[in-house]
Amino acid sequence: MTVDGAWQGRISPDTHFFDAGGFTLESGAHLPEVRVAYRTWGRLNARGDNAILVCHALTGSADADDWWGGLFGPGRCLDPDRHFIICSNVLAGCYGTTGPMYPHPDDGAPWGSRFPRVTVRDMVALQARLLDTLDVSALALVTGPSLGGMQVLEWAACFPERVRAMAPIGVSARHSAWCIGISESQRQAIYADPDWQDGRYAPSRPPRHGLAVARMFAMISYRSWENFESRFSRAPQPGDEQTFAVQSYLRYQGDKLHHRFDANTYVRLTEAMDSHDLGRGRGGDSAAVLSGLAMPALVVSVDSDVLYPPREQRWIAEYLPAARYEVLHSDAGHDGFLITLEPLDAMLASFLDSTQQLRPASLAP
Amino acid sequence: MTVDGAWQGRISPDTHFFDAGGFTLESGAHLPEVRVAYRTWGRLNARGDNAILVCHALTGSADADDWWGGLFGPGRCLDPDRHFIICSNVLAGCYGTTGPMYPHPDDGAPWGSRFPRVTVRDMVALQARLLDTLDVSALALVTGPSLGGMQVLEWAACFPERVRAMAPIGVSARHSAWCIGISESQRQAIYADPDWQDGRYAPSRPPRHGLAVARMFAMISYRSWENFESRFSRAPQPGDEQTFAVQSYLRYQGDKLHHRFDANTYVRLTEAMDSHDLGRGRGGDSAAVLSGLAMPALVVSVDSDVLYPPREQRWIAEYLPAARYEVLHSDAGHDGFLITLEPLDAMLASFLDSTQQLRPASLAP
Repeated sequence: MTVDGAWQGRISPDTHFFDAGGFTLESGAHLPEVRVAYRTWGRLNARGDNAILVCHALTGSADADDWWGGLFGPGRCLDPDRHFIICSNVLAGCYGTTGPMYPHPDDGAPWGSRFPRVTVRDMVALQARLLDTLDVSALALVTGPSLGGMQVLEWAACFPERVRAMAPIGVSARHSAWCIGISESQRQAIYADPDWQDGRYAPSRPPRHGLAVARMFAMISYRSWENFESRFSRAPQPGDEQTFAVQSYLRYQGDKLHHRFDANTYVRLTEAMDSHDLGRGRGGDSAAVLSGLAMPALVVSVDSDVLYPPREQRWIAEYLPAARYEVLHSDAGHDGFLITLEPLDAMLASFLDSTQQLRPASLAP
Repeated sequence: MTVDGAWQGRISPDTHFFDAGGFTLESGAHLPEVRVAYRTWGRLNARGDNAILVCHALTGSADADDWWGGLFGPGRCLDPDRHFIICSNVLAGCYGTTGPMYPHPDDGAPWGSRFPRVTVRDMVALQARLLDTLDVSALALVTGPSLGGMQVLEWAACFPERVRAMAPIGVSARHSAWCIGISESQRQAIYADPDWQDGRYAPSRPPRHGLAVARMFAMISYRSWENFESRFSRAPQPGDEQTFAVQSYLRYQGDKLHHRFDANTYVRLTEAMDSHDLGRGRGGDSAAVLSGLAMPALVVSVDSDVLYPPREQRWIAEYLPAARYEVLHSDAGHDGFLITLEPLDAMLASFLDSTQQLRPASLAP
């Protein structure tokens, strides 16, 4: 299946679609038909041991070679000559996978806010179905940042037998009150927009002001004092002495999001992040869950991350039986995992080498 | 003059008003008549050397015995038996001093967004006029947190001969790009509310949703990861398992602000904070300005402050010739200066003792 008109320009023409059929959520809600948008790079080798699953963050997509391009390529940690790399848009996403922008089977109008709440475990369960159809029984590595890191941890907890190694980045074992508060304030910005219409807005008239305000606040939480100071300080916007450059930057970042992202999706995905708690339904003790995950793990912090501060990743690494903990030095804040890519690539590549020697697909028996 | 109806219940009945007449701003804009709401505690002694000026933060008021009550009282750093304490609502405020809620002289309707932009220096210049009428020629101490700390620094820079000692708390020498960005995202939340009406809203129909979203952002920036985690963690709101307690807390904090604060005032005061730069109009070098401020200074950081991180206060203390630098240990974040009061009181009291021995007013010659 190829990319249809609705996604033209928003996702790669190389996107594949997998029709997963009906899908029952953790909540018990049932989606009668679910489609997954995904990309792959490289080939699965004959031993089936070179697959890497990449999981994306809140506003990311299956186009990992776009948002994580610096990690892709010969000799890098995501090397299509050696690895079979898979990335799918998450359930409830707006980059091709079934979510609030999809037509509701009853009336053909977008699901919108009728789309049920999902959890990170739902996302992972759907990815597992996709991997079944791709004949990927084991993953040499599952990695991803932020919401992607939540999926990594849930992959390890839900399917420990399929995960040979994991690398969660800039994430917590359970979404903190701090992160829930930041999510909530962003959702409230969306709800405050009269165009929100309780989530039943027309696609042509989304709550763009509310989404813009949410994005401005998010962008701040993704960066750091140091990053903004070194980048903008108190410089005025060129040609407008009454406006600081940082104001102009944030307005621009806010205004442009509605061109590429959907407000109902923003609400559902931030809710999914808020639901994230490794211990939920597993005795309530996320430390105990981590203690049972025996596969090799690389846990990465960004030292300037104010959203998921390094203490959260240190805590994860402390309880995992076979964890390596690394700190990415970056003044970029949480977004360091998208920006400071050379050292991150080195960390991931070294970790991969330590867990197994992957052979090029061409040398596979 | 006593409190009139408009302020009933919002400010103390003990508030005094000072009619300052016409007032020309730094920008050159002229306000034909300006009134200042202020409170005092204690008496000026005969030597006139026991006056303390307290400067309030963004949503504060002249009621320092309310928002800083823990510092007031016998034996405390603000002791009406020993000190003559003054606190005034800032210019452009909404707790009794002339600002956007005041009637415009032309039409009697609120100034609203017609009220000109002001700077921290304007606030300080107006306070100086007030002190003239109170016969306060010298201040034993000027202190305040956040926006209050900006006023402290500007008092020292504008009127060094009147400031015997200063104690800026949780503040920077120049508003950072980080803080400007956080201010801007809050203003944009207000602007996105259709009731904003470009600042020409009726008093009965303020942009309360926008102000609520701004306040939610602000409340997060005033606290810390640790504070939210220890207070809320992932607890549900009692009686509502679908809502986290932290969500409920933030919604409540947001919703209630419009009862006590005005949106145009919020815009003008955050703009004034963004204008804060000790070096502006003084050669551009705030370090050089600090180096010229010879009076004793106590500079206080809250160690968990993510809005004005400790590096900003250390920087101030480094350049001041006679500074003592202290760190308030508190998990409360920026708001630690309102919450962790016992150690703050001890710091301020010890500093005051070190700068001079204030005698009780009753023992004055």
